[in-house]
Amino acid sequence: MIKPDRDFRDAIVNLKGLVGADLERVNDTIMATMQSQVSLIPEMAAHLINAGGKRLRPMLTLAAAGSFNYQGDAHIVLAAAVELIHGATLLHDDVVDESILRRGAETANIIWGNKESVLVGDFLFSRSFELMVRTGSIRVLDILSHASAVIAEGEVLQLATQNNINASYDMYLDVVKAKTAELFAAAAESGALVAGADKTQQQAFRDYGLSLGIAYQLIDDALDYSGTQQALGKAVGDDFREGKMTLPIVFAIAAARDPSSRQFWQRTIGDNDQTDGDLEKAMAYIKQSEAIEKTLECARQFVDDALRALNKVPSGPIPNALRDIATFSITRGF
Amino acid sequence: MIKPDRDFRDAIVNLKGLVGADLERVNDTIMATMQSQVSLIPEMAAHLINAGGKRLRPMLTLAAAGSFNYQGDAHIVLAAAVELIHGATLLHDDVVDESILRRGAETANIIWGNKESVLVGDFLFSRSFELMVRTGSIRVLDILSHASAVIAEGEVLQLATQNNINASYDMYLDVVKAKTAELFAAAAESGALVAGADKTQQQAFRDYGLSLGIAYQLIDDALDYSGTQQALGKAVGDDFREGKMTLPIVFAIAAARDPSSRQFWQRTIGDNDQTDGDLEKAMAYIKQSEAIEKTLECARQFVDDALRALNKVPSGPIPNALRDIATFSITRGF
Repeated sequence: MIKPDRDFRDAIVNLKGLVGADLERVNDTIMATMQSQVSLIPEMAAHLINAGGKRLRPMLTLAAAGSFNYQGDAHIVLAAAVELIHGATLLHDDVVDESILRRGAETANIIWGNKESVLVGDFLFSRSFELMVRTGSIRVLDILSHASAVIAEGEVLQLATQNNINASYDMYLDVVKAKTAELFAAAAESGALVAGADKTQQQAFRDYGLSLGIAYQLIDDALDYSGTQQALGKAVGDDFREGKMTLPIVFAIAAARDPSSRQFWQRTIGDNDQTDGDLEKAMAYIKQSEAIEKTLECARQFVDDALRALNKVPSGPIPNALRDIATFSITRGF
Repeated sequence: MIKPDRDFRDAIVNLKGLVGADLERVNDTIMATMQSQVSLIPEMAAHLINAGGKRLRPMLTLAAAGSFNYQGDAHIVLAAAVELIHGATLLHDDVVDESILRRGAETANIIWGNKESVLVGDFLFSRSFELMVRTGSIRVLDILSHASAVIAEGEVLQLATQNNINASYDMYLDVVKAKTAELFAAAAESGALVAGADKTQQQAFRDYGLSLGIAYQLIDDALDYSGTQQALGKAVGDDFREGKMTLPIVFAIAAARDPSSRQFWQRTIGDNDQTDGDLEKAMAYIKQSEAIEKTLECARQFVDDALRALNKVPSGPIPNALRDIATFSITRGF
């Protein structure tokens, strides 16, 4: 049901081509920022940064600034700060979720330990604020400190809804907006801000980032049940094993009418009591209820919102590339 | 060997009397900042904030600002931000150290869990930066984001030196400066800054905070082997069980000449292989080597540095109270 992802890959390659020189400088800034006499810090940072993420969030910052032909340096340190916030949340998420695989490599908590991941995450987070200070803009710090608080709040909310089979679409959307979309929004908004865009255009980039971020997470959650480990770089069914109430599960549970399927979800998600074959059974229920299609249909609506937001920004090759990113994110497989 | 702590308690009560009205406003600001639709957040924050810490760090901020008769509001949000950074590090430290008792109460990681402590710690940390933004001062954010990075780096360094019986006095001092003293320094420096103090006076408050912070941690580490659980609000010997290379242990190991005592430290600290009676034996070695007295003698030198730094600030009741805090911290038992 999910189509090949050549188009999304092309869209990313295209955007990378437009902001590529800046992205190199972002990587250099990150590596310079991670230097420390405590060798564990650059080691863990390199593992995280070199693991080959898509760099979507810093690219949003660079793209937003580039849309206004910004010629300064503030967007570079800002994009590095955004990626460090993301890196810090990944380190902490993997501890909280007890993940073992990310982007095809063992997670830092597995290689170095949970304690190390918590503390080095704190270090990345602190350094990201030091980078923001270098932009000299209180407004940048306002946007990103607020985003960080929203992210953390969303992570706590997700923990609170975990294993709650009555969690609704609205609760799930609150989690997604907070834990994922807010950083997309802040990355794009602050990029426009440092480039001198006016309030309307800052808001347009914020709206684009928020909607893209929601769609992106919905697709991630669909892929957790419909992708392949090779493409995902992590195990299929991780969310199921953790009892996370993502949208495919919300839809599948909503469609569960007979007692045996309700009991199944209560046991596996509600009571987190899982045995061999449960993931396969869950995926059969998901297929039967068309939960993946429904999730992707929701994602499509947020992609439409993202495209609408871009109507308010100046036309040019970068906004066009951002359109493609949004459009083709629906069919991505990684 | 440690004298009663009536004098230190008096010194704190005295300083609280001088900044008390502001401290109330700091507490109100913290509680307001911790409001969230996610009920776990205010619950955990209240547990942490109401646990009756000494509030030394925010008091340093208030005292520094008060020394210049500052009449604005920036020191209130700044002091709240400082306490939130401290609170975030406590939540994460207790996860990393697997602590079960703090200030006489069960730790948050025991009551709510490690995951919750990691994420709510991140929330506190993010909110502290949101508060700093309200001061409108990039310099404040510069000082405190740098301090946060230094703290995290110090925590990682401490983890790296744990169970290393060759860790030296210098390595230990690097850890103490980073994980504890830097926040004392930043709290005092930034309080002077928002009050409009000149560079020399900002530096004087920074120097006072740094030296007081080092002395404070050395005394903490001495108390971990010489205090009482009732006064400390936590178990005696926690550092020993974690294999932490604190100064009393550094001195005791330096004094260990015979093979049996060296083997003892290698087994208990180096290999973290401990059995019943080991803590008592460690304390006997510590007593025999006068490691507590030597640790307190070091602390006394840093107290002298702290007092010297205060010579450069305007005289008045608040600097006098800060003198007493430093002087009497040596004899504290809690």
